Amino acid sequence: MNGAESLVHTLLGSGVDVCFANPGTSEMHFVAALDRIPGMRCVLGLQENVVTGAADGYWRMARRPAATLLHCGPGLANGLAGLHDARRARSGIVNIVGDQATYHRPHDAPLTADTEGWARGASAWVRTATTSAEVGADAAVAVQVARTAPGQVASLILPSDSSWNEGGAVAPALPVPAAPQADPHAIETVARVLREGKNVLLLLGGMALMEGAQRQAQRIAAATGARMMCEGSNPRIQRGRGRLPLERVPYVVEQATAALGWVQHLVLVNSKAPVGFFGYPGKPSILYPPNAAVHVLTRVEQDAESALRALADALGAPREAPMPDPGPRPEPARGPLSPEGLARTIAALMPEEAIVVDEAVTYGRGFFPHTHAAPPHDWLQNCGGAIGYGPPVAVGAAIGAPGRRVIALQADGSAMYTVQALWTQARERLPVTTLLLSNRKYQILLGEYRNVGANPGRTALDMLDLGNPDIGWVQIANGMGVEAAQASTLEACADLMAQSFARNGPFLIELLI
Amino acid sequence: MNGAESLVHTLLGSGVDVCFANPGTSEMHFVAALDRIPGMRCVLGLQENVVTGAADGYWRMARRPAATLLHCGPGLANGLAGLHDARRARSGIVNIVGDQATYHRPHDAPLTADTEGWARGASAWVRTATTSAEVGADAAVAVQVARTAPGQVASLILPSDSSWNEGGAVAPALPVPAAPQADPHAIETVARVLREGKNVLLLLGGMALMEGAQRQAQRIAAATGARMMCEGSNPRIQRGRGRLPLERVPYVVEQATAALGWVQHLVLVNSKAPVGFFGYPGKPSILYPPNAAVHVLTRVEQDAESALRALADALGAPREAPMPDPGPRPEPARGPLSPEGLARTIAALMPEEAIVVDEAVTYGRGFFPHTHAAPPHDWLQNCGGAIGYGPPVAVGAAIGAPGRRVIALQADGSAMYTVQALWTQARERLPVTTLLLSNRKYQILLGEYRNVGANPGRTALDMLDLGNPDIGWVQIANGMGVEAAQASTLEACADLMAQSFARNGPFLIELLI
Repeated sequence: MNGAESLVHTLLGSGVDVCFANPGTSEMHFVAALDRIPGMRCVLGLQENVVTGAADGYWRMARRPAATLLHCGPGLANGLAGLHDARRARSGIVNIVGDQATYHRPHDAPLTADTEGWARGASAWVRTATTSAEVGADAAVAVQVARTAPGQVASLILPSDSSWNEGGAVAPALPVPAAPQADPHAIETVARVLREGKNVLLLLGGMALMEGAQRQAQRIAAATGARMMCEGSNPRIQRGRGRLPLERVPYVVEQATAALGWVQHLVLVNSKAPVGFFGYPGKPSILYPPNAAVHVLTRVEQDAESALRALADALGAPREAPMPDPGPRPEPARGPLSPEGLARTIAALMPEEAIVVDEAVTYGRGFFPHTHAAPPHDWLQNCGGAIGYGPPVAVGAAIGAPGRRVIALQADGSAMYTVQALWTQARERLPVTTLLLSNRKYQILLGEYRNVGANPGRTALDMLDLGNPDIGWVQIANGMGVEAAQASTLEACADLMAQSFARNGPFLIELLI
Repeated sequence: MNGAESLVHTLLGSGVDVCFANPGTSEMHFVAALDRIPGMRCVLGLQENVVTGAADGYWRMARRPAATLLHCGPGLANGLAGLHDARRARSGIVNIVGDQATYHRPHDAPLTADTEGWARGASAWVRTATTSAEVGADAAVAVQVARTAPGQVASLILPSDSSWNEGGAVAPALPVPAAPQADPHAIETVARVLREGKNVLLLLGGMALMEGAQRQAQRIAAATGARMMCEGSNPRIQRGRGRLPLERVPYVVEQATAALGWVQHLVLVNSKAPVGFFGYPGKPSILYPPNAAVHVLTRVEQDAESALRALADALGAPREAPMPDPGPRPEPARGPLSPEGLARTIAALMPEEAIVVDEAVTYGRGFFPHTHAAPPHDWLQNCGGAIGYGPPVAVGAAIGAPGRRVIALQADGSAMYTVQALWTQARERLPVTTLLLSNRKYQILLGEYRNVGANPGRTALDMLDLGNPDIGWVQIANGMGVEAAQASTLEACADLMAQSFARNGPFLIELLI
């Protein structure tokens, strides 16, 4: 058995059976092993951020790591933005990077690069498998690291001779440690705060946004009057009817400080204390009041649901608290395209258990209030801020949760970074409906530019404007094998949405907003 | 004056007047400064490898560095593959990466990443400008580093408060050191080898492939019978009538060792001793005979032309040696598409001083012999092996050499990595004719896979095959604002080529090979 074969067997034995891949020459023995050994679903991406972003989306829905397959340092580099977003979303990924043969590396051939160095900034764990005998054991550790709460990027670099040499040994799956329990003292402290303190915010993040944890949080809110919010960007929120109508910490600094101005006690549940996405002249970095007390109920890797349950019990909360009634499901909106109208139309039409992959950027900031009364669904956000996360995460979410419709809310500027993902959506016939928000500019940057205190002149506009030429999204989608159509009214959008939900495979709706 | 303004003034004063940009929020003050201060041509790329690859192509033709503008660590990461290729091509680039404000960085906001760490693997020099007072001086050093022979990537990281704070100071341009001269002992040694040795190969690379250096090399060859070749991948070869009909060291190991098997003395002129692109089981890493003597006439940063002249003089060579006659210019070929026919058609039709950006991969390996009799032109290759170098380098080459036609020989698989470059070609109305070689597979990998000793099964094919769905290049190009058409015969290809050469702006010809 060669090293590559031991790697494939070890991955499969450890529960990794999806591999998002963009292989090159140095990975051919691994590809051959994947070909010979049944059981791994291999999905090709035509650029590496498609690969890494898909692995991110897969984890978010399946809660199991996928493997990637990337080609040498530069192939890894092309996927680093996706890994950055995955790291921030705390997604578990077994990131496999083929590389030069160990004995060839000193010759500094063209593709030779500091693969380990580049991997480090996006990984919790980096190891180079230096012999075929070690590959299996290294892979088992990589899977263990990836699955360790809250989910981590484990990068395994695979020199080609470690793949092709004989002497590979399959390693057994390693135990995955359970998510650690909250510190009982933390539960006690927070219970005291909730009993005595005023103006308490429970800030939910990560796994605290799953339905089970939300139920426990609602018990606490019902018993104490504490308010609840979620972080500005969240890997996955279970939302819609029967879930909490949570609002996000706003992106805009002034809106965030206004929304949090009342907070005296900030209780973190798998979340981080909110800070601005960026620093701005004369504006605070920290979004909550400087004199608020910050209490950690659970760190990001701890078990939020059990901590919330223990806390609710400690508070003597009733065993069940009804979820708030979000009111009637919206009707599809009519007339010209607008953020509110689009949000209401999505809420009206989305199938049960849809997965919304949200990279709507400015247009989507107000979508939450209008979608609380939609059927139960999952909402995925960009946690790392690296642009273009949407199309690849839609790929991975669809593969990680078969049978569920993915609705990708996608800004045009962002979509261009990872436009190649459309091709994978077509090849794999994934049920992804992309609502492509075509405003033909970097709207977020035009806003930021005006914050600088100037109106943009020609030079600035040329760097913030996506017109000239306008991007033809229908043509691009068709060129990548995805059916597509334009809509410039909410009625037309609703028609196309309903059509696309009724059939298999991807569809792109270019919304001329 | 704020830091950003001092940066723009310093760049302009140091001779940097083109900026390839993909800005984000943290770069808005720099964008505002570019807007207020006239003189910088700003070119937007919709993904960062477009930006860095364009800067690479610009240097190769203009021999002056362009600036880039990238957004935080993840934006840099997206451009690292282009920087890797630029580093291998020894292109000078002033790589500017905006980043979090210095005081905001400790808050670990979503986009915060190890920007310096990621920059390091692709840069000769990395510095973070920590105050507005230092930005100008830092920029002057960055330009100096970028221009230092043979050309280097200098990465300047620009925290947003270093941009927006007052106290900026314009720094004067720093002197650019001339390329160092060859060691006289090296010239003496090589002269002795050429007088006494048998089977001498002059391996030309880098600036030794410019016309002036070629003339000196030809004097030596004429006087001594030494043979000449160029490296396997070269940043820029001046070719065609009146230049040397150089062949490359072949990519395939067996072909390379056969082509170099006769060599007893290998003389390096701005080149590296040839090694394989990859290691393969049972094949050598070093492509020249192990007992050949290797002599360095000039290291990559040294002045090749003056060294070759001194060497020719030392050998008593005549002052001028006629360049070999490449024979008559080919006629356009007819019939089905073939590598030889396409090469001959390009040679027949290319305008004087065309720039060929070659990412033809397998299809283009045999193009050289058929294009020696073309009019004088430049031929640019991928020196780092990071795929997708072609479309961005075509952008930069067109901007770096205004008025010259760029012919991009582009494999389909590679083109997908940086397909966004087509939009920039359209926006800037660049005279780029892309010959898109659509074979709908990763042909190079199918060859490598067969070398592994197996025929690909379904799983392997799914990772090596670009069909299902076929990529519609005409639609994709149109969607990005580039006119396009298909050709499936050499006659149709010739017609479209001639049409596109006769007008301004980009055009894409999808060749169904």
